Amino acid sequence: MTQQQISGDMLIGGTSMRGTSTQFRAINPATGIELDPVFGGGGAAEVALACKLAWAAFDSYRETSLDARAVFLETIASEILALGDALIERTCAETGLPRGRIEGERGRTVGQLRLFAQTVREGGWIDARIDPAMPDRKPMPRSDIRQRHIPLGPVAVFGASNFPLAFSVAGGDTTSALAAGCPVVFKAHPAHPGTSVLVGGAIQRAVRTCGLDEGVFSMLLGTGNQIGTALVENHHIKAVSFTGSRAGGLALMRVAASRKEPIPVYAEMSSINPVFLLPGALGAHADAIGTNFVASLTLGAGQFCTNPGLLLGIDGPDFDGFLASATAALGGASALTMLTPGIHNAYESGVTRLASAPNVHAVGVGLPATGPNQGRAALFVTDADQFMANHSLQEEIFGAAALIIRCQDIATMKALGETLEGQLTATIHMEPGDLDAARHLIPMLERRVGRILINGYPTGVEVCHAMVHGGPYPATSDGRSTSVGSLAIHRFLRPVCYQDFPQDLLPAALQDSNQEHLSRRHDGVLAVS
Amino acid sequence: MTQQQISGDMLIGGTSMRGTSTQFRAINPATGIELDPVFGGGGAAEVALACKLAWAAFDSYRETSLDARAVFLETIASEILALGDALIERTCAETGLPRGRIEGERGRTVGQLRLFAQTVREGGWIDARIDPAMPDRKPMPRSDIRQRHIPLGPVAVFGASNFPLAFSVAGGDTTSALAAGCPVVFKAHPAHPGTSVLVGGAIQRAVRTCGLDEGVFSMLLGTGNQIGTALVENHHIKAVSFTGSRAGGLALMRVAASRKEPIPVYAEMSSINPVFLLPGALGAHADAIGTNFVASLTLGAGQFCTNPGLLLGIDGPDFDGFLASATAALGGASALTMLTPGIHNAYESGVTRLASAPNVHAVGVGLPATGPNQGRAALFVTDADQFMANHSLQEEIFGAAALIIRCQDIATMKALGETLEGQLTATIHMEPGDLDAARHLIPMLERRVGRILINGYPTGVEVCHAMVHGGPYPATSDGRSTSVGSLAIHRFLRPVCYQDFPQDLLPAALQDSNQEHLSRRHDGVLAVS
Repeated sequence: MTQQQISGDMLIGGTSMRGTSTQFRAINPATGIELDPVFGGGGAAEVALACKLAWAAFDSYRETSLDARAVFLETIASEILALGDALIERTCAETGLPRGRIEGERGRTVGQLRLFAQTVREGGWIDARIDPAMPDRKPMPRSDIRQRHIPLGPVAVFGASNFPLAFSVAGGDTTSALAAGCPVVFKAHPAHPGTSVLVGGAIQRAVRTCGLDEGVFSMLLGTGNQIGTALVENHHIKAVSFTGSRAGGLALMRVAASRKEPIPVYAEMSSINPVFLLPGALGAHADAIGTNFVASLTLGAGQFCTNPGLLLGIDGPDFDGFLASATAALGGASALTMLTPGIHNAYESGVTRLASAPNVHAVGVGLPATGPNQGRAALFVTDADQFMANHSLQEEIFGAAALIIRCQDIATMKALGETLEGQLTATIHMEPGDLDAARHLIPMLERRVGRILINGYPTGVEVCHAMVHGGPYPATSDGRSTSVGSLAIHRFLRPVCYQDFPQDLLPAALQDSNQEHLSRRHDGVLAVS
Repeated sequence: MTQQQISGDMLIGGTSMRGTSTQFRAINPATGIELDPVFGGGGAAEVALACKLAWAAFDSYRETSLDARAVFLETIASEILALGDALIERTCAETGLPRGRIEGERGRTVGQLRLFAQTVREGGWIDARIDPAMPDRKPMPRSDIRQRHIPLGPVAVFGASNFPLAFSVAGGDTTSALAAGCPVVFKAHPAHPGTSVLVGGAIQRAVRTCGLDEGVFSMLLGTGNQIGTALVENHHIKAVSFTGSRAGGLALMRVAASRKEPIPVYAEMSSINPVFLLPGALGAHADAIGTNFVASLTLGAGQFCTNPGLLLGIDGPDFDGFLASATAALGGASALTMLTPGIHNAYESGVTRLASAPNVHAVGVGLPATGPNQGRAALFVTDADQFMANHSLQEEIFGAAALIIRCQDIATMKALGETLEGQLTATIHMEPGDLDAARHLIPMLERRVGRILINGYPTGVEVCHAMVHGGPYPATSDGRSTSVGSLAIHRFLRPVCYQDFPQDLLPAALQDSNQEHLSRRHDGVLAVS
């Protein structure tokens, strides 16, 4: 498959459909050159059609057997791999990301699909519960009461710019919604439409191969906000997933809340991922921490939700040592191509804004750009009082820029922590001698972040059962959930109770025979099958 | 303890405090006479103090051992029982509900506390997960990644008028929030302030007996919306629980969504709880169904969220038989005292509105009122076309009034069902010959209700592990949860991930030693301990 074969069409159910509302092309950010083909952006009619098909598919799709649904996810994985090098090449061209990264991300995407297939088959997410009847109970008999979780309904998923595979068309949000039994209407990110069409086609083929209703998956193309707004407003849509800017997430939250029937929005919006350097750690490894911190900061041009944008240390010689090491490492860091001209411009503005903030000092800078849309890494320093006095210093700069805070002591670190907004992650660097200080900080961090790391770096989010990629507002719109890892399936479920049902009207998950071998609770006692 | 000993004060942490913003008394709705004492309603200062105390208590309360927290809930139960007859008498006087009902409700309240104590001890709600490190994995090692659920933070709970014990001060919402580890700031319903002060005192004593931080529980008194709005606006509050009118719930949702940090609202708002009578059931038991339906409709003056306010049957002789039986039973139903003059007035207005709706016919009425604030039961009939054409016929009338719909066939029943808003419950009456018709209706019902009953009546909500008392909007503001049953604990939790933590920094739930004997997932595989 070559680039010329990529269609510029949307995928509405089982068909291809040309959008006629807008026209756009992808841009190779590494060259600034537009790529073929021209894509047709859709409008209200296509949104309505995709949502109607999704609704029509819901009742049958949500009652597919666990195995059938798992096989569907595995088939999507196979179809993505079958796209071969054409997918890798197109994704690199549309994002400026290197081949190794994209190959790794494809592996993650396929692994995610397989992890959710395993999760679907295991069935613990159904949380099946059976409280048997007690006909002789006094003063009142008890009915037979059973419960399972069912999917919410069709989900609108918005692709992220920064993970063109793993958080795009067949990414974590789509996969967890499909795993839960929700049809997906996907709005492709306009920065990588060719990649989206290729992966969307893979899902469309998997739907067909598995004999599912065509409405299980549709993919819309378009630029601007109108098509996304129309999608979230559609009454067939019962939940929304989004990864992107805070402004974008807040806009979708407003649309969802002002519907006649408000619906949940899972928006992952922004995070500066504070890193706390405790004295023992700095005393033992100031150099290595400086180097490794810069490696995490500059990875992928800093275009990760978990990029460490804030670092706190206690003033003194070890802190100066760390700073020297970080500054030196940064001095050798190449400027890397950013995802889009828009993201690059926003990064440059953010760095300029930080550089001109009162009492914020530039202490290090990466190598200058050698091509279009390259972001030059930057480090700034200020002190705790300045930071706490200026809330705008908490704003995320998407890219390889970080602000380092000179603190007086652990108490100051904690006090500053208490002023931070909700975050995806926080990291503590420590040695055994720092245990008490760490114990002092952790409760404060638990209250405001989704994941706490010891002696690591927050970039590189493992896709597993225990991962939490979420956090209190405004890191996400709903801190009760995660967007990475198998726990994400719970975002798209709700409980339904069945009282005094005859066996043959009960869903399979709740029949006495338990033919799907689910772990279930009987009178509250968990029995593993 | 006698009624004269009830204080008119609020409970703020460990102290009593006189509210000076407003003054009010309870009214005995059965007599219309005001009761002693005068209660002092609080204002912004007391809200701020209670929330500050709750926040200060959060870190210590959320880390109480599972057993200590369970003992706390059990101690509340004991303290409520120790209030003895004084509580029963005051509750009857403030609500007009009969002694037997209030004694039963006290039993349910105490049972609820004990069920949650058992749930807390079992610990499945923590959903502890451990994905061990894989240092030798290629191409990248895996970190040690663990996850537990922690409480959201202090919760604002609003008491319901219609369950002065089971959904009030120590009711389901308070109990599930305390079970999750959340301090509670409770806003008492102004219709039963004396009951609230008595039960609040029981919780306050339990806090003291168990050696907990005083901020774990506070109780505010007041009339009007200001105090509740201030409570939901307070930045220390991280979730809201409410049971009441749709207008009240929507107002709280708006306040919560417009905060700088939006928070979840669990509002249970309204439901008409449709009952579907299938032909076989009507053929076999038209008489009994008519009688039992009216018993459910008129129970407690119809003042239940699950009151069956809508009934659908297929036109014909059996339907007429059912109607005759229901009308006859209703004719002997006494008018019962309603909870407040305001609720009684709203009921009368609702009945008047329904009686004057086009093509809606009154077919039965209960015995007339013999005292103040008594609601006279009423039955109305219309046909499916009229119902679907007039959305206002879906509005809940809180009390013993129901609308019966004459349908042509099962297809009409289903089509009408598809026009219904989200509901707490739906009920199907059926015989074996109705299986196909039931199968036709159930997927439609699953999409819009929290609980489906076969051959029962929706009033009487069992407190157990499999119960769901919730449902899609507008039955509740968040259909992903339940307010009754042990599953309710999940409303107040969020996941937190711990990466590469040394054992002695991990919370007990995630340490290798598993001293609390929790069921946990290791690499996704559930192990029951």
